[in-house]
Amino acid sequence: MSDARETARAARQASFALAASPAQVRNGALLAVADALEAHRGEIFAANRLDLSDAAELAAPVKKRLRFDEAKLTDVLSGLRALAAMEDPIGHEQLRTELADGLVLSRVSCPIGVVGVIFESRPDALVQIAGLCMKSGNAVLLKGGREALHTNAALYAVLKAASEAAGLPAGWAGLLTTREDVGEMLRLDEEIDLIIPRGSNAFVRYIMDNTRIPVLGHSDGVCHLYLHEDADPDMAARVVVDAKTQYPAACNAVETLLVHEKAGAALAAAAKTLHAAGVRIRADAPAQAVLAGAGVPCEAATEADWRTEYLDLTISVRTVASLAEAIAHINRYGSHHTDGILTQDDAAAQRFFALVDSAGVYQNCSTRFADGYRYGFGAEVGIATGKLHARGPMGLEGLCSYKYILRGHGDVVADFAGGKRSFTHKKLL
Amino acid sequence: MSDARETARAARQASFALAASPAQVRNGALLAVADALEAHRGEIFAANRLDLSDAAELAAPVKKRLRFDEAKLTDVLSGLRALAAMEDPIGHEQLRTELADGLVLSRVSCPIGVVGVIFESRPDALVQIAGLCMKSGNAVLLKGGREALHTNAALYAVLKAASEAAGLPAGWAGLLTTREDVGEMLRLDEEIDLIIPRGSNAFVRYIMDNTRIPVLGHSDGVCHLYLHEDADPDMAARVVVDAKTQYPAACNAVETLLVHEKAGAALAAAAKTLHAAGVRIRADAPAQAVLAGAGVPCEAATEADWRTEYLDLTISVRTVASLAEAIAHINRYGSHHTDGILTQDDAAAQRFFALVDSAGVYQNCSTRFADGYRYGFGAEVGIATGKLHARGPMGLEGLCSYKYILRGHGDVVADFAGGKRSFTHKKLL
Repeated sequence: MSDARETARAARQASFALAASPAQVRNGALLAVADALEAHRGEIFAANRLDLSDAAELAAPVKKRLRFDEAKLTDVLSGLRALAAMEDPIGHEQLRTELADGLVLSRVSCPIGVVGVIFESRPDALVQIAGLCMKSGNAVLLKGGREALHTNAALYAVLKAASEAAGLPAGWAGLLTTREDVGEMLRLDEEIDLIIPRGSNAFVRYIMDNTRIPVLGHSDGVCHLYLHEDADPDMAARVVVDAKTQYPAACNAVETLLVHEKAGAALAAAAKTLHAAGVRIRADAPAQAVLAGAGVPCEAATEADWRTEYLDLTISVRTVASLAEAIAHINRYGSHHTDGILTQDDAAAQRFFALVDSAGVYQNCSTRFADGYRYGFGAEVGIATGKLHARGPMGLEGLCSYKYILRGHGDVVADFAGGKRSFTHKKLL
Repeated sequence: MSDARETARAARQASFALAASPAQVRNGALLAVADALEAHRGEIFAANRLDLSDAAELAAPVKKRLRFDEAKLTDVLSGLRALAAMEDPIGHEQLRTELADGLVLSRVSCPIGVVGVIFESRPDALVQIAGLCMKSGNAVLLKGGREALHTNAALYAVLKAASEAAGLPAGWAGLLTTREDVGEMLRLDEEIDLIIPRGSNAFVRYIMDNTRIPVLGHSDGVCHLYLHEDADPDMAARVVVDAKTQYPAACNAVETLLVHEKAGAALAAAAKTLHAAGVRIRADAPAQAVLAGAGVPCEAATEADWRTEYLDLTISVRTVASLAEAIAHINRYGSHHTDGILTQDDAAAQRFFALVDSAGVYQNCSTRFADGYRYGFGAEVGIATGKLHARGPMGLEGLCSYKYILRGHGDVVADFAGGKRSFTHKKLL
């Protein structure tokens, strides 16, 4: 049996007991892990120095993500302690119905079971994801980036020892380390209930195409802002620049600016600040004319631009004749991730909300707000652009399922089919 | 472009407007369809007579399912009218949080989009499924059984004309008729958001293995009842016989009876009534001894029996030494569908509920209650045994997704990253 399969089987076995564990055990484990990480900081930082020296030739942003220092540790510890203080997502009664006299149905939240998370080079993600799974009673298989091998191993050793000592079932968290482990993981549909891939578009697409296990996540992030005909130029300048430049490599950064043909002033204002912030603009013909008038350089956009996630300081601009045209463009070319409208016209915004088929639909704010922490979920395990189960940033709730509990006194269906008894369907909750 | 693809594209196009349609339009359409079906009953019954005469050589149960007569029409009409009277599942605000001063996040239920349903020979299922989709604002592709071709075509023609005349967008419901259409449907992952297959195990498994579109449903239904050591013999006799014989071909019928080694009296009582009802019993050695003592004939069970969904009047019996052993058997051999315990010991039942990894966990009642109508959901579009999105009988709620709406006043993330503003995360709902 492969290592990955063995690790997954152990996680599946542990998942049953973990699902039945009381909240105080899971919360105690979160606090114990936080304390243990603090106590073992020296070993963890040493392991991280090893990874950083191996990564000497990598690009600066990679090294920055890879670094695990006092500041990252502080964030990670406060994240774990905040999770421990949050309401238990498990065992929450979502509905209670009297089906008939003495026969009561309830629906109760429960963990999904075994979650496989494949994450990028940030080692703090390991602790964050494991913490979310611990809180939600899910066993987890963690597959981190190769660059962070030593740091991940050090973090995992502390996490495993402290959480199991605090009463979590042995094997509830497993660490996978090799590329072969990923391939093996994708075949373990008997052991793994859900895969959450985090990484490049091509990588996520590959995962989705190569497993029967349900995958939640997103590949592309082609997000839009639409300047409606009444868009305020000052607001447009501020919001568009934030959405493009605050973190251009993020999936929730804006890639295409849609502009109503009467919103030339707002476009000119946005384009000036974009240009000042070093953003390259690729515009359609009407927008080119506006930009020329505003003295902002640009290139000609092509059809391919509407489908491109630049992930850097480039933005495309397209002119539309109506709100309907903007909505049609977004539904056609977008990633169903996060799309916003800038308008004071609430009826137009309402129409935008109803018709744009995206996880997030925004009015008068930056698309960069699409994030589990910013939404108040404590943290996120990923962002989903599908429409089943969880949509948008996935926090604890996205890691939960539910089960129906039916309690009776010897009730049989034949009595109802035969007309001896009848259903009352009285809502009790 | 194939017919299926064209039909799916039209449904996708219609889905946007349908998602934004007011509840009164969707409810009006439900009532209009009911009235039109009533008005066109003659044509529909005539079409059904054609299907029935084509089916002259099929088995009696198939013909019974295929029949669409006054009684079936009455059920279908009352189903549609009940749906029209139900609360709107769309536009329901599920959460509202002030992220920061003037920046408010809400989460609102919305349709999934385009749902593809492949259903068996019962033509009433066509109307029921279309009704659930209409109510929940989903476009739908309907693929019915070949035996019901004429009936389905007649029902669909009425449904389409009446619903579109009542204001639903043209093409919101599409009918697919050929086997090739199914293959084509499975490839339309750009157009179809969800597939719900209803049919034989092998068929559902085939669908799940041959599409990238999310599939909700169940293949096997190996359900269990466990007679705990204190199980009441009278209750055991009544509940086990109902679970096995009330409709043996249903997925929620019981297949394996687990018996605590001290529950011999309950097993003997259950076995006598099972035998009287014509059920064949396949038992392990300790149960064989109990049955011999009770004068009930049986055969020897093998390991293969624990994995078998008989779908007829056969049941397997296995003896366990403890509640834990019963739970382990269910989690290992079961279908995660519906499993019950017979006991007066609520602590034992609680343990069973927590540790059995199934969509339905029952105490002292028949597994046959696992059904959307019996649960009070109005109707069901299918039963899901996966743990994502919907679990158990899927009614209107299972046909809904949600989106996040964020309303601001020019808010940008840079202000928060730079410490100028901070998140309040105040729960407003």
